[in-house]
Formats: sequence, structure tokens, C-alpha cells
Amino acid sequence: MAKERLLSLVLLLATNNLIVSDVNASEEKITPNKPNIILVMTDDQGYGQIGKNDNPIIDTPNIDQLANESVSLTNFHVDPTCSPTRASLLTGKNSLRAGVWHTILTRYFLGEEHDTLAEQLKRSGYETGIFGKWHLGDNYPFRPQDQGFDNVVIHGGGGVGQTPDYWGNTQFDDVYYDNGVQRQFPGYATDVWFDQSISFINEEREQPFFAYISLNSPHAPYRAPESYVEPYLKKGLNRDMATLYGMITNIDDNMAKLRNALKKNGLDKNTILVFMTDNGASYKPTDKKNVLTKKHTGLQEKFPGWIPNAGLRGYKGSTYEGGHKVPFYIHYPDGGLISKEYNNLSAHVDLLPTLLDLAGLPLPTEKIDGISLKELLMTGLSKELDERKLVITNQRVDVPSIDRPTVVAHKMWRYLTFNGKEELYNLSDDPQQQHNVIKKYPDVRKQLSNYHTTWWQELSDKGFLNRRIVIGNEAENPVRLNAMDWSENQGEVPWFIGHQAPADERDYIHWLTREGDFKPHPWYIDVEKTAQYEAKVFYHDAPAATPVQNKYCVIETNNQRHIERVWGRASHCVMNLELQSGEQAVTAWFTDDETGERQDKAAFYLYLDRQ
Amino acid sequence: MAKERLLSLVLLLATNNLIVSDVNASEEKITPNKPNIILVMTDDQGYGQIGKNDNPIIDTPNIDQLANESVSLTNFHVDPTCSPTRASLLTGKNSLRAGVWHTILTRYFLGEEHDTLAEQLKRSGYETGIFGKWHLGDNYPFRPQDQGFDNVVIHGGGGVGQTPDYWGNTQFDDVYYDNGVQRQFPGYATDVWFDQSISFINEEREQPFFAYISLNSPHAPYRAPESYVEPYLKKGLNRDMATLYGMITNIDDNMAKLRNALKKNGLDKNTILVFMTDNGASYKPTDKKNVLTKKHTGLQEKFPGWIPNAGLRGYKGSTYEGGHKVPFYIHYPDGGLISKEYNNLSAHVDLLPTLLDLAGLPLPTEKIDGISLKELLMTGLSKELDERKLVITNQRVDVPSIDRPTVVAHKMWRYLTFNGKEELYNLSDDPQQQHNVIKKYPDVRKQLSNYHTTWWQELSDKGFLNRRIVIGNEAENPVRLNAMDWSENQGEVPWFIGHQAPADERDYIHWLTREGDFKPHPWYIDVEKTAQYEAKVFYHDAPAATPVQNKYCVIETNNQRHIERVWGRASHCVMNLELQSGEQAVTAWFTDDETGERQDKAAFYLYLDRQ
Repeated sequence: MAKERLLSLVLLLATNNLIVSDVNASEEKITPNKPNIILVMTDDQGYGQIGKNDNPIIDTPNIDQLANESVSLTNFHVDPTCSPTRASLLTGKNSLRAGVWHTILTRYFLGEEHDTLAEQLKRSGYETGIFGKWHLGDNYPFRPQDQGFDNVVIHGGGGVGQTPDYWGNTQFDDVYYDNGVQRQFPGYATDVWFDQSISFINEEREQPFFAYISLNSPHAPYRAPESYVEPYLKKGLNRDMATLYGMITNIDDNMAKLRNALKKNGLDKNTILVFMTDNGASYKPTDKKNVLTKKHTGLQEKFPGWIPNAGLRGYKGSTYEGGHKVPFYIHYPDGGLISKEYNNLSAHVDLLPTLLDLAGLPLPTEKIDGISLKELLMTGLSKELDERKLVITNQRVDVPSIDRPTVVAHKMWRYLTFNGKEELYNLSDDPQQQHNVIKKYPDVRKQLSNYHTTWWQELSDKGFLNRRIVIGNEAENPVRLNAMDWSENQGEVPWFIGHQAPADERDYIHWLTREGDFKPHPWYIDVEKTAQYEAKVFYHDAPAATPVQNKYCVIETNNQRHIERVWGRASHCVMNLELQSGEQAVTAWFTDDETGERQDKAAFYLYLDRQ
Repeated sequence: MAKERLLSLVLLLATNNLIVSDVNASEEKITPNKPNIILVMTDDQGYGQIGKNDNPIIDTPNIDQLANESVSLTNFHVDPTCSPTRASLLTGKNSLRAGVWHTILTRYFLGEEHDTLAEQLKRSGYETGIFGKWHLGDNYPFRPQDQGFDNVVIHGGGGVGQTPDYWGNTQFDDVYYDNGVQRQFPGYATDVWFDQSISFINEEREQPFFAYISLNSPHAPYRAPESYVEPYLKKGLNRDMATLYGMITNIDDNMAKLRNALKKNGLDKNTILVFMTDNGASYKPTDKKNVLTKKHTGLQEKFPGWIPNAGLRGYKGSTYEGGHKVPFYIHYPDGGLISKEYNNLSAHVDLLPTLLDLAGLPLPTEKIDGISLKELLMTGLSKELDERKLVITNQRVDVPSIDRPTVVAHKMWRYLTFNGKEELYNLSDDPQQQHNVIKKYPDVRKQLSNYHTTWWQELSDKGFLNRRIVIGNEAENPVRLNAMDWSENQGEVPWFIGHQAPADERDYIHWLTREGDFKPHPWYIDVEKTAQYEAKVFYHDAPAATPVQNKYCVIETNNQRHIERVWGRASHCVMNLELQSGEQAVTAWFTDDETGERQDKAAFYLYLDRQ
């Protein structure tokens, strides 16, 4: 008996161990009931650059299949350019309310006061990751790691090879920022973003995750592995268009890879997978009014089903439909979101409340502009959407103005205004926006014009904040300032360096090799505390190691001018200076003038390192 | 009873577990009885650039202390330049037997047929690491990882900023090769090498290790943290000399850090710690005959104890004592090696057999030139050393010749020969080699001259091998070829790029900014198998991303010329070509000549990637 009891004890202990393990395991598995979220957004891919949208030239079988297996929204709108769309997406707010109305000049920095989708999901136990393009500020406190993302693998700026990006990047074998650390990734950029996100998914499959796969592709410059370009050259496209389409087919292959990874991990049913694009097409195969150019009439004959730009008027940057109507597919089998198509008026601002709602999480208490689409997605009906008035504006100026191009969308009406000029279209019988009916419907005009004015007054009421890069905070030290983030620049901003891939393409050069054309402009900074700083002033960025060939470098801040010798043929100069705490502007240049006054050459990069 | 027996069983199982753990632990501790080995070698630090060697200007308290606590050999010799010394050190062979007689032109590649010290120690259970300078070949099969080192953190080439090194390195915040992977290391180079080796020691303290801490410092260009330079400027030294001395004092501080790390790990007694330098001083404060220049007479007055160059004639590269006699300290308390000084004729070739002997490991069976110094170190006596004739030569040519400067050392005699000219010195009464007594001692002359001839005949008997970088092997693909390794170059070799640190120094520029002066020369390669290769032809190296600004790039191999367009302003061109297996020469250049014939600009870097 005693023997048996003791054996039982031993077994019990063993069993208890098992039970203890089980409890731990099931605790770990409590959260996975929340759906995972994957948001794939491509860059500058227009509505018509997907096979199923009347484009028989392009091959996107996997995106087409995803569309067929998803709820597809065919009247979904974003901002007409990159950063504003991204700001709205992550905040649920109109881009002006989110404080983002341009892609350069610091007007693309997303303020830390916004409670982003990533921050909200993170608070609810989600592991968060971004892979690819951020374009809402590369310095503290604007970086993805400051805005709720735990896993950050990104390029700098708004595209690979832009001024904030790692020197020399061309979309092939580049160096990207892996949680802030420079690291080389062999291969093609789009493949890297997908591979990194799949690694993240494989690692995080035990807990709910949010993966923001934000591609730099198919944004210009057009670069793709040659194997993707060749089939389109054979179809008779010019190299630019063939490469652009090759970039998209490469995305399409990666979408299949992503979905296979989900299946392999058993996550395909409990994951909300969204595919969308960030604005209209940037590549224009036709003129503004959707009439084929001579260059492209041959394509129309060869591919008779082809409706360029899906029949939409306007491209990236436009307030016509082609500028802001984009594909949107949401796939979530466990939530019943499959194989439907709805034409209700919806937008990027709706994504945040919709995703939170689908995940059973509380909606934001602060004012947002988005509406949860859960009801629409589940039932196909939404009175709120049917009544909504949606305003989209393309500012792209230093300070926003009511006079900039804006569209108010309501039901099938589109009221456009720009510098006092007004247009009105009814998409029900004029989907290509060819017939301005502003004079025919004075009541509609008045209603939508008034809405525009009220909207503007509300949003402009508190003014528009300058955003400043914070210097000397622990979170980022040293800080690298770059010329894309100059303020007070009314001329050309040197936002694209111009590194060229070793392949046939448009000679897509910006400031590299004509650097002398640029005059220095100030960076707006906020120095956290008065301290000694080591400042490094660069002409080309550090990896280039290009000899400066001027005698002095100058840093001007708070009306104080600091001059230092450039030793020999060094690539930069170093000076130690005290920066006073507070908001200020700092400007840097090179000169042969010993007084430091003459600005011979702009410094495109300035590093500030609190000692 | 049954109950007790069962309890015993449980306890026994528990105890057995403990025993099993203990056995594992003691098994892991069997090997540590072997002494650890740390070899610190500095670069271009002369015998007189240590405080205790008649130099009251320089501060090296920690090296002085180590010398006092070690067996110090005061008649220890190396080759007069970098790579030959390193080859001898690791093989126990005369540098010509090791096949290394220059620092450029592939004549510094250490062949894989040599059984290196690292390989021998590794076979006996040692964990091996190198930190700093290798300079015996940067490509397979010549790399440290091909020669017995498991942990490799190095710069490229023979110094930081040389052509094989990572583009832009200046000894501060550089990118180095961490087991072949590029990685940025914040801080000053010497600090990095020591910090990395201390991490290695901390990790490997449970098993015997061999750490080869091979510094790039104090090799020119002279660069040190300013805090190390200032005290010497205050002493009245010019900036060059102040920086050089600052580099050495920085080494000295790091030596203290290293010894503290050993103590903290309880390894200070069972570790063989060697400190030495690789050749004579490269900085010449006096003229050839050891008479102070006007520039330095002031120092002599201010520091009356100062004997420049420790009273030795000649500097780096010379066959006079100042070129090859270096400090050598070996500290090993558990082996009784402390606080002695011996003047017997010893050399770098002796290190391999000495260390193996001290570690109780078998000596090599193949012919080496070194003699184990164990007997000398233990007893102060060695008949073998007293009778030895040691030959040291400074070749630095494409093909070795008996006519190049050579010294035969025997007892206190030094027989020097160069192009048929002969000199003889007796160090007993002429340590400064001021009095040539060749005519006075015809017998000594004859004996040593004959020895030189016999020595040369034996070493030259089998000819001197060309070394070829292997292309297409799994161990290294792609392979990066660089201009320091051009063959057939009788003119200036572009071995130093010329990146300048942002500080006052000599304008130490080599080929950067005057690249047009160089004509392309062939790389000697051995293609492992016939295959398709992707070739990338660069002007500046990849990180620079410098636009080429020529129309075509050309690769010539096996008398076949391949031409490719340089697209736009790309930094390089890419071509796919088949390389036939076997030994061949490959040359690359840029041109505007569509036939590819005219060599407008040399390609300094060529990447070959087997597909």
C-alpha cells in the first residue's frame, strides 16, 4: 500500500508538473483568440494597376485571388499622396487633423500626441512590427519605435535612396535600419520587406500580432529584378512601364509567399489581411483626360480589354478619383469576411476604428474622422456611411490653405474646389468625371461648399504646428539631420540623392553630382537641455567619405556662428559646441571664406551628439 | 522498508543527477590546465618607443610594469616590415620560407599549406581569436578564418583605411569585419580591438584560448583621441609625434584594462601573455645615423635622459638593428616566467615552438626555423641559441633576390649585405653600428657570407610561388578584389585610400582624389570551376556610391574582353559572364571608348559572384 501510495505521489508530482506546464501553455494561448492583423500597403500603385481592374497586361493573379476571397471595397479613398495617407491610416484622423500635409519640409512628421493604431494594439497585447516604408519622420519623437512599433525594419524617408535613407541604397542589397541599427540585407527591397515580416510572423505566431508591411514599391525610380521586367518588354511595353509592372508582379509573388506562410502557421483563418495602396498611380500612360496618347494606342489594340487607369480621371496628387480612389481588400475568414464587394463611400480614416472593432477592442475616445466599417463588412449596410461627407485635400505647401485642391465626396457626388474654382461631378452617370455639372445643381453645390468651409474652419482653428526634431534625448543620440527636412525652403528640396542602379532606367538623378545648386536652409530643432554637443558636418553622408574640399565648415544657431577648419581632405568637420535648451533653427555649410559668411556649399547632413 | 527504499531511490535519482552534472562540469574543466595564450603585437612601434627603453617623454607605465614582471628578451628580432613578421610568427618559419616577402602585390598572402600556430592550438582544444590587423590576405584561402582562427574581428589590409579595408574607415567609429560580416564599432580602433578581445576572454574563460591581439596602432596615419594627444603637445612635441605617442599611451591604458580583465576572471596566473612589436619605428625623429636633427635638439635639452630610438641605428625597413630589434616580454606566473631579462639571440620564428612547448603540446614535424625558447626562459641558458645564425632580409620586391638587403646575426656580430656591398658590426663595442669592421675580420665575413649564400640557395631552390585568390568557392562568395592586390605593378600601388579623419594631421592622402593617375593592373585568380559569374565593377568601393561618369566598363580575362554599358550615373556596372576554371589574370577598367580598348579609369574594386 505504502509503496503504491508513494508511487502515486511520484506520479502525482509528475502529473502536477504536466498540469503546471499546461496552465502556462494555455495562459500563453489566451490572447491568440484576438485576430492577427496584417496591413499590406503598396506605394503609388493606382486602381488600374491590378489585373482584375480592367488591366489585361499586368499579371497579379495572387492579388486578384485575394480580392475574390475578400470583402472588396470599390469606393475606398485615401489622400492623394504618401505621408498624409499614412498619417490618416495610423490615427483614424483626417491628414490635416493628424498634422501631416506634405511629404517633405518636416510637414510629414507625425506628432507624438496621436494615439496610433500600433500604440492602441500594443496596449492590448499585440506584438507590433513595421517592414518597409514609414515616411512620417526619421528622428525622435517621430520614428515608428516612438509610435508603437516594437519591430522596425525600414528604409529612411519616403523611398529607398532618398536623402534620409542609407547612403547608396538602390533597392538591391541595401542597408536598412533594423530597430535603428544599420544592417545590410541581401536581395531586392520588396523581397526583404516580405521576408522580414514573415520571420516576424513565424516568431510571433503564439500571440496576436500587427504587421504593417508598407512597401516602397512600385514608387519611382522603377527598379525590379530583370526576370520580372523581361516578360513585359516582350509584351511591347517600354522599359519604364515594363519595370513598373515588373515591380507589381514581384509584389504579387510576395503576396502568395505571405499567404503560404500564414497557412503553414495555421494563421490564415484568424488573421485580418488587408491589401490596399496609398494613392493613385504616379505613372501616366495617358493624358489627364484619360485619352490614350499616341505612345499607348498600340497597347490598346494589342490588349483590347485594357482600360487605362481603370477609366479614372487623374493620377497621384489629383483630387479627381484617379488620385485618391484605391483598391481595398479585407480578408478574415474567422470573421466571415470573404468574397463580397461593396460600393459604399469609405476611406483610410475608417481603418483604425474598423480593425479595433473587429478585434473587439475599445474605440478611441478622442475625436477621430473614421467610422468603423464592421457593420458594412458584416451586413453590406451602413446608414452612417451612406450619409457621410468625406473631404480629401492635396496641400503640398509649407502652410495649409483653404485654396488648395480639395474634394468633398458625398454619395455619388464629387465637389472639387481649387483657388475659388469649383467643379461638380455625379459619378452615377459620369464615372470618368468628364462633365462638370456645377451650374446644374446649385443646391448640391451650396451644401457641399458650405461643408468644405465648415470643415476647414474646424481644422484650421488651432493653427498648424511646426514639428521639431528633438536633440539630446536618450532615445536618439546622436541625431542625424538631413536636407529633406530643411525648413523655409521655397525652391527645390534635395529629397532624392540619385544613386542609380546598374541597369537601364530613366536617369533618375536628383542632387547627386549637382550639389552646388543647393543653398543651405535651417533645420528646426528642439534642444532638450543645455549641454555640450559634438557636431559633425557632412557634405555627402558618412558612408560616402567624399572629401569636402572647402577650408571651413560653419554651423549657425541662435544667431551664433561657429566656424571650424576642415582638415586636409576630410569628409566632414567636427566641432564641440554648447547648445542652449529650447526651440531653435540650425543651419550648416562649407566655405572658403574665413569669416564663415559666404555659403559655398550646403551641408546635407549634420550629426549632433550630446556629450 | 519499502517506503524507505523508494525514498532512497528518489534520493539516489536526485543525487545521480547531481553527479552527472558534476561529471560534465569537471570534464569541461579538464582542458583549462593548459595555459591560455595572449599575444599582443603593436604595429610600427620601435624599441625606443617604450618608457623603460631610455624614453622619458613617452608614458607607458603599464607596459613598463609588464616588462618588469615578465621575462624580457633584449636581443629579440623580427622582420623589418609587417607581413613578413606576421607570417614568421604564425608559422615558425623564416618569412621567405613562409612565402611572404612584401606587404602588397599579393606577396603578403600566407599560403594555406602552412600549419599555423592557430591551427595547431585549435587542434589541441584551444578556442582561437584574432582582433585587429591580419595583413596576410583578405580573401579565401588566406583569411584568418581559413588559417585556424574561429573568432575574427579585423580591419582589411595592412592598416585601417587601406584599400582592402571598409570604405571610409579612419580609426574612429569604423566598420570592421566581424567573422566576415560588416559591422560598425563605435569608438577608437585600438579600444575596439581590446574590448573585443576582452569579450572573447570573458566568454572563453572556461576553456583554453589563444587571443591574437594584433593592433593597427601606432602605424601611420597618426590618429588618436585628442585627450591622448594634448599632454604630448604640452610637452613640446609636434603634432605628428604627439599623436604617435598618444596612440602608444592609449595602447598602454588598454594593456592595463586587459590585465585587469584577466585578474577579474582569475586567469592572470595561468595565461601566457606576450607583448611585442612587429618591426622598428616608422617615425624618424633623427637622421639615419642617430644624430638628432635640429628639429629635435630641443627635446634632448628638455628631456636629458632621452636616447632617440633607444640608440639603435635604422628604422622600419632597415637591416640595421633599429629595423628589426623589438621589445619582447613574456609573462606566465604559473610557468615561473616573471621578472628576468636575457640577452640571447632570439626571434619571431621562435614563438611558435616556444608557445607549443610551454603548453606541453607537440612541436611541428615539418621543417621550421624557430627554436623553442623554453630552456632559455626557464634557466637563462641555451647553447643552441648561442650558436645560431639568424638571417633577416628586407625584400619588398615582386620577386625575391639575393641582392636585397639582408643581415646575418651571430652572437654579437651583424653581417649586412645589399647589392654586393658588405658591412660588419660588432655590437659588443659598437651597439650603434657606427664602425664597419668588414676588413678587420675576414674570417667572420667569410663565415657569415657563406652562411648567407647557403641560406639563400636552400630557400630559393624551389622558386617563389604566385598566390592566387580563389574565385567561386563556397567559403567566400562573392569575392571582392581590390587594387592593393594587383599583380605586375612596377609603379605606385594604390594601397592606401586616403580618408582623412576630421582632425589636424599630415595630409595623408594616397589615391583618393587623384584616382586618374592609376592604370589598371591584373588580379591573379584561380577559378575553382567553370560557371556563370555576376561581376560588379566599381570605381570607388560600394559604400561610396560615387557615380562612375564613364560610358562603359570592361573586364578582360583569358584574352577575352567583356564590355558593358554603365547606366546613367551608376556607381558600378554589372555583367554576367562565364569564367573558365583554372588560373588566370583578370583586369577591369572604365572607358568612354566603345571598343573597350582605351583604359580611361582603373576599376579599384571588382566583385565576382558565382551564380
